[in-house]
Amino acid sequence: MSSDARARAYYPALNALGLIIMIFGLLMSFPLIVSAALGDGATLAYDQGLFVTFVAGLLLWVATRSKRRDLRVHDGFLLVAATWVVLPIFGALPLLAYIPDLGFTDAYFEAVSGLTATGATVLSGLEHLPISINLWRTFMHWVGGMGVIVLVVAILPLLGIGGRQLYKAEVPTPMKDSSLTPRIAETAKGLWLTYVLLTVACGFSLWWVGLEPWDAVIHAFSVAGLGGFSNRDASLGHFDSVGVELVTIGFALLAGLNYATHYLALVRRSAAPYRRDPEIPFYFGVLALSTAMLTVYLLAQGVFTDVGEALRYVAFHVVSISTSLGLATHDYTLWPMFAQIWILFLGSFVACSGSTGGGIKMMRAMILYKQVFREIVRSLHPNAVRPVRMGRNPVPENILHAVLGFSFMYMVSIVSLTLVLSAAGLELVTAFSAVVACLNNTGPGLGLVGPASNYQALGDFHKWVLCFAMILGRLEIFTFLVVLTPTFWRR
Amino acid sequence: MSSDARARAYYPALNALGLIIMIFGLLMSFPLIVSAALGDGATLAYDQGLFVTFVAGLLLWVATRSKRRDLRVHDGFLLVAATWVVLPIFGALPLLAYIPDLGFTDAYFEAVSGLTATGATVLSGLEHLPISINLWRTFMHWVGGMGVIVLVVAILPLLGIGGRQLYKAEVPTPMKDSSLTPRIAETAKGLWLTYVLLTVACGFSLWWVGLEPWDAVIHAFSVAGLGGFSNRDASLGHFDSVGVELVTIGFALLAGLNYATHYLALVRRSAAPYRRDPEIPFYFGVLALSTAMLTVYLLAQGVFTDVGEALRYVAFHVVSISTSLGLATHDYTLWPMFAQIWILFLGSFVACSGSTGGGIKMMRAMILYKQVFREIVRSLHPNAVRPVRMGRNPVPENILHAVLGFSFMYMVSIVSLTLVLSAAGLELVTAFSAVVACLNNTGPGLGLVGPASNYQALGDFHKWVLCFAMILGRLEIFTFLVVLTPTFWRR
Ligand SMILES: [K+]
Ligand SMILES: [K+]
Repeated sequence: MSSDARARAYYPALNALGLIIMIFGLLMSFPLIVSAALGDGATLAYDQGLFVTFVAGLLLWVATRSKRRDLRVHDGFLLVAATWVVLPIFGALPLLAYIPDLGFTDAYFEAVSGLTATGATVLSGLEHLPISINLWRTFMHWVGGMGVIVLVVAILPLLGIGGRQLYKAEVPTPMKDSSLTPRIAETAKGLWLTYVLLTVACGFSLWWVGLEPWDAVIHAFSVAGLGGFSNRDASLGHFDSVGVELVTIGFALLAGLNYATHYLALVRRSAAPYRRDPEIPFYFGVLALSTAMLTVYLLAQGVFTDVGEALRYVAFHVVSISTSLGLATHDYTLWPMFAQIWILFLGSFVACSGSTGGGIKMMRAMILYKQVFREIVRSLHPNAVRPVRMGRNPVPENILHAVLGFSFMYMVSIVSLTLVLSAAGLELVTAFSAVVACLNNTGPGLGLVGPASNYQALGDFHKWVLCFAMILGRLEIFTFLVVLTPTFWRR
Repeated sequence: MSSDARARAYYPALNALGLIIMIFGLLMSFPLIVSAALGDGATLAYDQGLFVTFVAGLLLWVATRSKRRDLRVHDGFLLVAATWVVLPIFGALPLLAYIPDLGFTDAYFEAVSGLTATGATVLSGLEHLPISINLWRTFMHWVGGMGVIVLVVAILPLLGIGGRQLYKAEVPTPMKDSSLTPRIAETAKGLWLTYVLLTVACGFSLWWVGLEPWDAVIHAFSVAGLGGFSNRDASLGHFDSVGVELVTIGFALLAGLNYATHYLALVRRSAAPYRRDPEIPFYFGVLALSTAMLTVYLLAQGVFTDVGEALRYVAFHVVSISTSLGLATHDYTLWPMFAQIWILFLGSFVACSGSTGGGIKMMRAMILYKQVFREIVRSLHPNAVRPVRMGRNPVPENILHAVLGFSFMYMVSIVSLTLVLSAAGLELVTAFSAVVACLNNTGPGLGLVGPASNYQALGDFHKWVLCFAMILGRLEIFTFLVVLTPTFWRR
């Protein structure tokens, strides 16, 4: 095949990417309108950003229009990976245009962190930025969240990533209870509607408990997308309000659940879907036990002396970090190391499989847990192998294998990226926790990248490695790795 | 079943354990004779130890004699786990009897570290101990190594631990090239002979390059068993001799290879078995690349200024830690953290599958590596699944699954035990590296448990957790975990 014909093989994916870039450009009209209405002086940044983005998308779309056809699996990988790598370039434009002296690395890092809903920031003095800039930052979380919902519900199961096929069979769906993918568009719309309702309810609740309207809007985007950007350097701690914290905990808990379950409950006006969701008891169980344990531990260690105060800070951070929201109200790096590591660890598996949360997801953690027990029984009674079950159905062996492989690669990614950052001069706790916080799309880590500081202090190389980690985590490892292999580009 | 009948179900395993304890007691006559010959004042310690051990074993043997029968899989698990938990109690006796003020926790830790060939020590002032005590310490490594050879070659494949079944099919054997287990006793004898020859050659070589005879004997046991105890607080660094280091590197490299390969080469008087062993190119490849990389890195970082000096220290520690020997010539915790973590990391997989080394073993690392690539190809071309091959043969799916499950549990063990030690007050680098060094049966870790200090400073609880880690690692996780489940004890 000529190199020209080779290039054309990628046209269908690039054509769809062009369309996505155009839509993304149009989304900048939201902060643009807000900026113009408030006269906050950032209007030009969105004007330019919108124009450049839309034109770039249009050019790509026109250039690749000749080969339009239905997307195949191969195109799916390219489209998904390219979307999460390329959109942040455009998402960075308003930040670059408005914030003086902001380098491209920092702007791209901030936009990747926005669109992957990680919430790790390199900016400080957030309270002095225009409302529209902070709105754009958390709006990227929210838009990224919409992308993730489609990704985890519709695309990853098709690509068969890390046992996601299970999703098709196992998760209660609005339709015939066993076919979600045939009506992707329909389903996506339903889930997005749920997502919008949750965001609106969160915004009004935050306003009701005392936040200023724009603070409420900005944090509603952040919470619903489980992103974690704030418009204050002290994150949610700035407001020092139990009401705000309770509302945030409540909506983070909802956002960490499977959107398909929410949607089904909404459509059927019944709580039954929640009762049937196999992830829910484990989700709340792990959160409740961890909160209780850490409250007792921190009281025993003398970090807190008042039970109510301990419970307030522990419950908030357990929920915020576990669901991978990542907002903070307090510098938890002052806690003993065990408590810090424990919440970081929770962030790697607590969020449910159909949520916008990060990590390996509760479903996979449950499968791993059951599988380990089965392996032990199998060692003893090689002929009495019981299948691993999820709900009532046995989980097929190939899915067990995929889940195990995925979790293993997750750990390998943590180890290798930690080694890279450590070789590049970062101290171990910072390197390790930054990798975990970025791969899990949680946001704040420990050490130098704890909630009281941010990612600004890191070097450019560290930031690029962490951009890679954020995208790798968001795309569930394999989706991204596949595109990086020579095999992918050989036809 | 009555509780009496229940107890009797364990008699066959306990009966074999009684026999093993008696033999172990008789082995104490070796340091006893040495002590008596040298008049080093420790004779009484072995007298008592030998007597108590032999009588305890005899009593157990007599009490459980009534139900002797062939051992089944279930008995195998119990016997193996009980052996590694119970023998150290007796191994600790001479230390307890001779060293004043040594607590039981410390003595048990030292004996577990000895018999699992870990080499983590809680003793200091080693040069002031009688020769026979140091001899007993490294002799425990050596005896433990004999146990490990039987374990990995004959028992674990039968129990089907972590894909060890592969061993039967894959490793070149002295017999018909595909059946090792039918003639366990024969094979074990052959492998032990190889082990003895290697030990003798190592001892003479160490003597030849300048060690005093007893230093040579003590270190030969340490090197051949890949144990790592020394009779000097500064470990091998005490001798500051390039010759001693080269001999140690050479024999550690040999000891980290598969004993079945050595034996086959010996019997056939041919180098062909080495050429056919699929682990060998990876084993030497990883060691050579790591040595080259770290030498360049440490020169670039200014840790060393002389290439020869850098190569001398890097090569020694890369080989010593990777093979899980664990002797040291220098305080590598003064290196940048990346280099420290890298060698610790090598210790978790470099040793070959039929060696006395620790970690997940090179064979499993190779399978994991190939499997990851296959998963990526499978994502792209779901219908073009190529089998993972080892040498010429495809590896069955159930073995891939077992290897993946094993490696996953290895990482889970590291994470959970690190959390436990961290909750118990250890600083993170110390907690993590102590767990890794003990689980890998390497010995020295980083931080507080680096090569310049030792495990003495830790609390009793930490030491018990690390005893658990050493046995867990030595018994390849599942063998030990199985016995700790209620399922095991339910009949
Ligand atoms: K987040
Ligand atoms: K060792």
